[in-house]
Amino acid sequence: MLEYGKKRGRKIAELLEGGFMDILVFGLGALGTVFATCLKNAGHNVYTFIKKEHLSKFKNKKLKIIGLFGEKEVELNEFFYELKDLKERFLDLIILTVKAFDTEKAIYQIKEIIKPDTLVLLAQNGYGNYEIASKILGKEKVILGRVIFGARVIKPGLAEVTVIADDVVIGQPDKAIDKTTLENIANMLTNAGIPTRVSEDVYAILWDKILYNSALNPLGALLECSYGDLAEMEETRWIMNKIIDEIFEVTKANNIKLNWKNSEEYKKIFYEKLIPPTAKHYPSMYYDIKSGKKTEIDALNGAIVELAKKAGLKAEINQVITNLIKAKEKLVFK
Amino acid sequence: MLEYGKKRGRKIAELLEGGFMDILVFGLGALGTVFATCLKNAGHNVYTFIKKEHLSKFKNKKLKIIGLFGEKEVELNEFFYELKDLKERFLDLIILTVKAFDTEKAIYQIKEIIKPDTLVLLAQNGYGNYEIASKILGKEKVILGRVIFGARVIKPGLAEVTVIADDVVIGQPDKAIDKTTLENIANMLTNAGIPTRVSEDVYAILWDKILYNSALNPLGALLECSYGDLAEMEETRWIMNKIIDEIFEVTKANNIKLNWKNSEEYKKIFYEKLIPPTAKHYPSMYYDIKSGKKTEIDALNGAIVELAKKAGLKAEINQVITNLIKAKEKLVFK
Repeated sequence: MLEYGKKRGRKIAELLEGGFMDILVFGLGALGTVFATCLKNAGHNVYTFIKKEHLSKFKNKKLKIIGLFGEKEVELNEFFYELKDLKERFLDLIILTVKAFDTEKAIYQIKEIIKPDTLVLLAQNGYGNYEIASKILGKEKVILGRVIFGARVIKPGLAEVTVIADDVVIGQPDKAIDKTTLENIANMLTNAGIPTRVSEDVYAILWDKILYNSALNPLGALLECSYGDLAEMEETRWIMNKIIDEIFEVTKANNIKLNWKNSEEYKKIFYEKLIPPTAKHYPSMYYDIKSGKKTEIDALNGAIVELAKKAGLKAEINQVITNLIKAKEKLVFK
Repeated sequence: MLEYGKKRGRKIAELLEGGFMDILVFGLGALGTVFATCLKNAGHNVYTFIKKEHLSKFKNKKLKIIGLFGEKEVELNEFFYELKDLKERFLDLIILTVKAFDTEKAIYQIKEIIKPDTLVLLAQNGYGNYEIASKILGKEKVILGRVIFGARVIKPGLAEVTVIADDVVIGQPDKAIDKTTLENIANMLTNAGIPTRVSEDVYAILWDKILYNSALNPLGALLECSYGDLAEMEETRWIMNKIIDEIFEVTKANNIKLNWKNSEEYKKIFYEKLIPPTAKHYPSMYYDIKSGKKTEIDALNGAIVELAKKAGLKAEINQVITNLIKAKEKLVFK
């Protein structure tokens, strides 16, 4: 292994199979912990950047995961909490795992430390992350990821992978990054135990997750119930159908291409294929509100409302649901 | 005092000031307990009809109230739980205090025991009670009441009056009962410690309560917060404004006359006059859900949805709110 952080001008596309990368995992919640642990465990140099106020929560550089990706325990190369310490480092890849409401701030921080050959992989939820990152950093620096395994933090530094719905999908929506680079990153993740594939349709695939999460997450959080409960009751099915209908209207008006001919086609898949295997699952938004954390509603139903406004439309069912979650957040913080 | 239940052919209009009535309080929740206690305390013969399954909750015929109408303790003349025991009785007045979802059943029971000179006073919440009662019993038997003091059951037989927003208002929306009769009943209630006035506009006044309750109750129950919290947050104000706008549209389309020129006029009163004195109040629907009871959503937002359908309209914000409360009920019962 080369001494980490000292290489210059290396391109991911030129890395040989099995070559080790210098990777910064930006944010160390559940997802960040899983990425960092698996990648370090596979031999890569892995650093992490966390907020200074969170530093005291992590006693040392040790991370551990349990659950569906197996039990792995590692010691990271380094914890960073000040940007200046990262400015002189070379990084092949930055994996952004912060919540969507922190994306803009994080991207401006990344802009200060990014090198000509560094790429940024967005491993976040909802709409708006790619739009912000590609605008600030340039499309050719940004890989969009659709992460659809679920993990939870047991305590800082220890996370559990609880559900795997599909491979991670990565891609460059505007074809601004060559295929070899993307394949190398996908292979690197797969070899590290996180099954990943490249797709040109990553944007539409990400929208599938937005559809799914927008229909289920806020209702599960408001009613404190599982996805299966939501699908069983006619009252909540009516609301979810309306949420989905509005998303189809709004994306069409914004020229966003979804994977489905129309909302009826999606609803059939939604109720018959997608919900049954996750019927017992409670949304992360439920846990966020329970533990007094800010939710990602603005990147889900809230983003639909904003996209509707942009197109001169209304998305009032999504608006009611967004407002209820935001009111709930305010009351918890109160 | 005459021996109770033995008089025949007496009309309330012919009762002298201070004459005692034979009154059946139908239902013995918080409101029923307050009416029965105050009226018995004032010297009337008061019976009550409760569901047989609730009988064991009441150890004896003693009732007590505390709170804003003072502390009063009485022993009722009789508890009834079988209709056959009531068929031979003469009653001047039946005060119906059951929840709106039990109105239809109760009115059919009352139809079996009602005498030519017995009147029925509806002391319930929401839309539909007068419509059902007048259809089944005839308008000339039914007095509509708008009760806007709040009470809660501490334990069966003991209730607390917690808030008084205004006098009780009674009236006959279709002018099918003479004024003297109505005045006698209002005086009787006032003299018993429940301030009451007669109004020809009782129907519009009841709708004021429907407006107020439809805007505040389900949101307070869903978000578990006070009226003041709901009025403070822009997110919940947006939803309440939409609920109110839809009610104005729907009542107009159904030729229901409200007390207000338009929804803007009402909203001004709502936020500036009506909410401040009750800002700390939590809706009864909140307590209903907390204690696993069925709510009156069908007589509030649910009734708006039905009235909208009748007029070929939609009231989708009221529909979302209705569905969320019904889903919450189902999950509690689960």
